Amino acid sequence: MTRDLMPNRYRPGQSALSPREAALIARRDAVLGASYRLQYRQPVHFVRGEGMWLYDPDDRPYLDFYNNVPSLGHCNPEVNAAMAEQAGRISANTRYLEPQLVDYAERLVATFPTGIDRVVFTCTGSESNDLALRIARLYSGNEGVIVSDYAYHGTSAAVAAVSPNLGDAVVLSPNVRMVSLPGPAGVPEAQAAAFFEAQVRAAVEDLNRRGIGVAALLIDSIFSSDGVCVDPPGFIAGGVAAVREAGGLLIADEVQPGFGRTGSHMWGFERHKVVPDLVTLGKPMGNGFPIGAVVGQREPLDRFGNTARYSNTLLSNTVGIATANAVLTILQRDRIQQNALAMGQRLRAGLEKIAQQQPGIRAIRNAGLFFGVDMGGEDMAPHTQRAFALDVVNTLRDDGVLVSTTGENEDALKVRPPLICEAEHVDLFLAAVERALAKVADARNQGLK
Amino acid sequence: MTRDLMPNRYRPGQSALSPREAALIARRDAVLGASYRLQYRQPVHFVRGEGMWLYDPDDRPYLDFYNNVPSLGHCNPEVNAAMAEQAGRISANTRYLEPQLVDYAERLVATFPTGIDRVVFTCTGSESNDLALRIARLYSGNEGVIVSDYAYHGTSAAVAAVSPNLGDAVVLSPNVRMVSLPGPAGVPEAQAAAFFEAQVRAAVEDLNRRGIGVAALLIDSIFSSDGVCVDPPGFIAGGVAAVREAGGLLIADEVQPGFGRTGSHMWGFERHKVVPDLVTLGKPMGNGFPIGAVVGQREPLDRFGNTARYSNTLLSNTVGIATANAVLTILQRDRIQQNALAMGQRLRAGLEKIAQQQPGIRAIRNAGLFFGVDMGGEDMAPHTQRAFALDVVNTLRDDGVLVSTTGENEDALKVRPPLICEAEHVDLFLAAVERALAKVADARNQGLK
Repeated sequence: MTRDLMPNRYRPGQSALSPREAALIARRDAVLGASYRLQYRQPVHFVRGEGMWLYDPDDRPYLDFYNNVPSLGHCNPEVNAAMAEQAGRISANTRYLEPQLVDYAERLVATFPTGIDRVVFTCTGSESNDLALRIARLYSGNEGVIVSDYAYHGTSAAVAAVSPNLGDAVVLSPNVRMVSLPGPAGVPEAQAAAFFEAQVRAAVEDLNRRGIGVAALLIDSIFSSDGVCVDPPGFIAGGVAAVREAGGLLIADEVQPGFGRTGSHMWGFERHKVVPDLVTLGKPMGNGFPIGAVVGQREPLDRFGNTARYSNTLLSNTVGIATANAVLTILQRDRIQQNALAMGQRLRAGLEKIAQQQPGIRAIRNAGLFFGVDMGGEDMAPHTQRAFALDVVNTLRDDGVLVSTTGENEDALKVRPPLICEAEHVDLFLAAVERALAKVADARNQGLK
Repeated sequence: MTRDLMPNRYRPGQSALSPREAALIARRDAVLGASYRLQYRQPVHFVRGEGMWLYDPDDRPYLDFYNNVPSLGHCNPEVNAAMAEQAGRISANTRYLEPQLVDYAERLVATFPTGIDRVVFTCTGSESNDLALRIARLYSGNEGVIVSDYAYHGTSAAVAAVSPNLGDAVVLSPNVRMVSLPGPAGVPEAQAAAFFEAQVRAAVEDLNRRGIGVAALLIDSIFSSDGVCVDPPGFIAGGVAAVREAGGLLIADEVQPGFGRTGSHMWGFERHKVVPDLVTLGKPMGNGFPIGAVVGQREPLDRFGNTARYSNTLLSNTVGIATANAVLTILQRDRIQQNALAMGQRLRAGLEKIAQQQPGIRAIRNAGLFFGVDMGGEDMAPHTQRAFALDVVNTLRDDGVLVSTTGENEDALKVRPPLICEAEHVDLFLAAVERALAKVADARNQGLK
């Protein structure tokens, strides 16, 4: 069976559209490449954003519990002021001396454990992972890459080739090996570490046997596209050791967990008490401005830099640097990570309470403000669980709340609000989830769906 | 002999540095990856930009005749106002309906010949070329890519593997074939088209014989990193036909020639009277904001979009779209392409006059405001010509004028000022070139170098 790769997408004819949206979709289809997809049965149309909210053309507000790029809120005025100020002063490239680039690089590496003290900037998380793979392959002399079963690491040719989540139509590299995660495999937490290590050791052995060798274990430490597989903290350590014994590097893809989202730590890998060789950054780094980075240990970065020629005119342009610098300032000054921890706890407690009172929530997994919430009953078939999740997502959308789905079966709500969210937003979200679960359950019970 | 890939780079100890710059370089070296390079024997340090000028910390102005990203001038206030206004309103992604994305996409494709009517946005030229290669390979079912001898198309793993200009340390794909260009091969213009076509046919034949097949001819139509090989217009047409006969696509890399730089046309491929299947955009599209695109014919883009899953959160974020929209408005309203044509003619005439009056200019090639100016005498050995070019570049730098080098032997001045440059800037530049040539010739004659 081919997986439906984006079940929460709009399908033409699926819903009655207003003339305004129908006309816009028709124009969009005529000029954009066919790879563009809209979310929801009834696509949303936004013209304004502010903090936790997006507004449609009728000024109806939608509570954003999905977008992890604007971590500091939509249209953050302080971030935007820094961007505009810099754009009015200078936007230079790195072939010229410019102090802000160095200032920010120093501030950024200071947030990492000792030993991770070098940075190369990029424009996107995909560029970061692409570059990290080039570095790991050059440094290790090996080609193999180990990723999780449903990993997604980006869109470049090399990164798409190690992203099984893109589905059968994107040909995987012959040098990639997938490992299963303990949670989705139904392994109890006490055996999670041993299970993961055994998976990685088998992959390493296979790569070695075929003369490919292992260049890297590339993981997003909260395994977001596998369904948010965060527990128990530390379960990846044995697998990391196995890769290093074989000469490979650990690349921590922090595009999703990084910059405080996990609440307990600035960087997701810290939850697992491992120190990566290379760390890749993207999405929230500029709160929407395209900037990313590879941060890492000196040896692999210097080996690459001294051997290969690498430059990129737009990466590390000063406007992106100034914007990212403002993001980091606000993150630290306003204790955003601590807020993510507190709001994550409040959200989890609220969801647990709902799960006790209403059917429809099968499991809750989270690290800080990144949640996977399995939908539907234990007794339901997988396709029914997925349909239930989709009904909840679209009911929430109609109620003015944005989330989507994740996981192998796409039956988990993917919930990841901007990190500035406050108690009132969490409570609004929880009330909406209660309403949505009741409505979906009613409709199912009445056989209307 | 290994080519020196960036002769105009700063080498530690090469020049006496002020304490201010020495301290900044030391901090930079400590925190940035080793791939970062500075330009010039005496690196430049800028803190402010405006129009055609960059300013150092002592407010000394440098005339920028090198940077092609800020086509509309450094810190263009109108572009920046559009960026700031949009950032304060909404920065959405393409999974939601948003009219400006569609508006700009329509305006952009309207600047292309009939048949090129679809667009997918990216953040950089590298991402554009990486995506175009994925599309061409999926559509053609072939893997082979044909590029020019010293082509450079970007930094991702897949694109670096088809960029011979990156040098021996970056392993080329076994599926790439290089073709020589008529100019550097010393072929007279009358035979240029036949020469190029024969080169391409031989490459196609070899790719077919080895079962690789040809996916694409990937070319920057002014061949900037080959030394600016622009003439005669149309010389690539037979080669393009040869690739199409074999089932391959033409990918026009417009990162350098696009958006009016060639003066005669909006897009560089138009000079050659060919219509590409895919066109890749980058650098000047956002005047510094990271935005790029693949624009192309419907069939390959739809085949890819309907088969593979492709998305990118940061690409086509609304702030980039609004910024690019302002750039396109100004380009069209202020007749920037026509200005590039006129100023290119003025610059060419001035350089020709200097070449008649002073030794040191061996040849001048240009399309609009992109120049390759071969330095040194016909009688000099290649390494002396290169040294001469480097002396001129660094003398100009000391005189407050920015250019660099290009070409197989890196003995050509690479001159590509922002497209807003006016007669007074051209005349300032010409006067500086006269002074630099005299100074370098004097120094050589006196045996001081």
